[in-house]
Amino acid sequence: MTRPAVCYVGVDLGGTSLRALAVDGENKILAVKKVRTLRGGGPGRLINRIATLVEATLRDAGVSRSRVRAVSVGAPGPIDRVRGIVEEAPNLGWKRVPLRAELRQLLRVPVFVENDVNVGLMGEHALGAGRGARNAVGIFVGTGIGGALIFDGKLYEGSLGGAGEIGHTVLAINGPLCGCGHRGCVEALASRTAMERDVRAAIKSGRKSNVLKIMKKKKKERMTSSIIVSALKKNDAVMQDVMKRAQFYLGILAANAVNLLDPECVVFGGGIAERMKDDFVGPIRETAYQYFLRRPDPKGVKIVSGQLGDNAGALGAIVLARQRLEA
Amino acid sequence: MTRPAVCYVGVDLGGTSLRALAVDGENKILAVKKVRTLRGGGPGRLINRIATLVEATLRDAGVSRSRVRAVSVGAPGPIDRVRGIVEEAPNLGWKRVPLRAELRQLLRVPVFVENDVNVGLMGEHALGAGRGARNAVGIFVGTGIGGALIFDGKLYEGSLGGAGEIGHTVLAINGPLCGCGHRGCVEALASRTAMERDVRAAIKSGRKSNVLKIMKKKKKERMTSSIIVSALKKNDAVMQDVMKRAQFYLGILAANAVNLLDPECVVFGGGIAERMKDDFVGPIRETAYQYFLRRPDPKGVKIVSGQLGDNAGALGAIVLARQRLEA
Repeated sequence: MTRPAVCYVGVDLGGTSLRALAVDGENKILAVKKVRTLRGGGPGRLINRIATLVEATLRDAGVSRSRVRAVSVGAPGPIDRVRGIVEEAPNLGWKRVPLRAELRQLLRVPVFVENDVNVGLMGEHALGAGRGARNAVGIFVGTGIGGALIFDGKLYEGSLGGAGEIGHTVLAINGPLCGCGHRGCVEALASRTAMERDVRAAIKSGRKSNVLKIMKKKKKERMTSSIIVSALKKNDAVMQDVMKRAQFYLGILAANAVNLLDPECVVFGGGIAERMKDDFVGPIRETAYQYFLRRPDPKGVKIVSGQLGDNAGALGAIVLARQRLEA
Repeated sequence: MTRPAVCYVGVDLGGTSLRALAVDGENKILAVKKVRTLRGGGPGRLINRIATLVEATLRDAGVSRSRVRAVSVGAPGPIDRVRGIVEEAPNLGWKRVPLRAELRQLLRVPVFVENDVNVGLMGEHALGAGRGARNAVGIFVGTGIGGALIFDGKLYEGSLGGAGEIGHTVLAINGPLCGCGHRGCVEALASRTAMERDVRAAIKSGRKSNVLKIMKKKKKERMTSSIIVSALKKNDAVMQDVMKRAQFYLGILAANAVNLLDPECVVFGGGIAERMKDDFVGPIRETAYQYFLRRPDPKGVKIVSGQLGDNAGALGAIVLARQRLEA
């Protein structure tokens, strides 16, 4: 095996797991490593853990550190990308953590930091479901709902770097309370958290459902995407109804975005989309097509789930770092 | 007076009036002329009328045709901008009219054609309320609700040229029927047409209002913006309530757009905004600020009415033509 001349490392810093991925100059994956996030001990300890993981990934890839052009991290929260600071990451218990400076000191290579949803869409756009699209919208459905935008082939960050908050589109005035304090945001209607609330409410009101039993059996306190998939496989009627309603709202959300932004492609990411693929996105697409404004060919707009699975974020972080190095 | 070395003519082709405006190389206005649109006689006759108006405007400006760099028209409907065709303009009774080719043949100068809402925002962005904004959103409230987007200083047209249809953002699932066939679009909640429907319904249900009397007195069949302003001046309670509701929906619409797109500026245009200025936009802004997602300074986002009044479209058409000539 010839040694790659250059190497880039992407890191997906999630609330539960930490995933690193090394690629060569052609984005060929050389190594992937994953560890649990471990939140105790403050930011410093977790940043050390990231550095250790990057080094282990490079060893697996058989690449020396001198060949690393950049390490690029996707982090779960708003980012000050000029300074490389994670402004706030509730899933990590972080507030204003200077991730880039600290990681650069540990690794002594250029470090980039970007929001996780942004890099997820970057990955899918460059190498996955959004390939070839000039304009694309990413909708990430998890405990919350995040969004990302690509216009003219480039990540659109907005005037203050805050673009993409599609989860806080109000779709139901006076609807359920959202974590942001407002009512009726799509995040309060169709996120995993909203679905769990609706399932619990249905059970409380007397409907029969296996969801809580499945959670107990799998030792989960939250209705994770694997729980949702299990319940749907067992034709749990409550889960089916709740999912259908969430898909309807997400279809309206996608149609609103397409009518406003006229992209070639809307990519759905996040655990549910990754596990369920078109069982999740199919009904969303149907609703969206119904709500498109006059179009020569509604099906010309792709509404799809991501293709890169767990690698989307780390690959997108690499794509972004390469763009920034070349800019 | 020295003769300008170059001249550009912008035309605002509206359903009721036709407005032409000649500027020099510094966008200084040399002459403005306005005539009624006159719809009878088909597209050919109206295009002749445009050509005659352009020539009269040049005479007023004291500029010979050889100095004209471009004539640029804002037209009320979707545009095939590669071919310069007005795809559909219900207000003019037009369908697939090759405006650019026909006008070029008559005037023998370069001709550009763009959607009226797009050029309206271009004008406000270059010379009016949106000056200095890198990213801006335009919301035009008239018989319908149109939108336009500027990202990174340039008009964003989307993948098929259809971007900006913000009027067909669904804000109230199962809400009132919209002209597009769907329910609950903001156009069906807050356009002039929607407000008129709500005023008429309130009167029918027994509430007292002077709106119909004012319409009769002014010999108007529709509730135009001047009728709305008159009714509000007389403290017509029905008109006040209907306006308040429309402003609330427009505030939610603006907040959704700001949360998604993070612009510096949202400009409201159209007859009502032009006449009422901050009496119209003030309450919209208040609602929008309430619905913004966490921002260091919500008031950092300007939510304002246009400053250029009736000249916005023609000036914007000129700005766009100059950008395209220089590209």
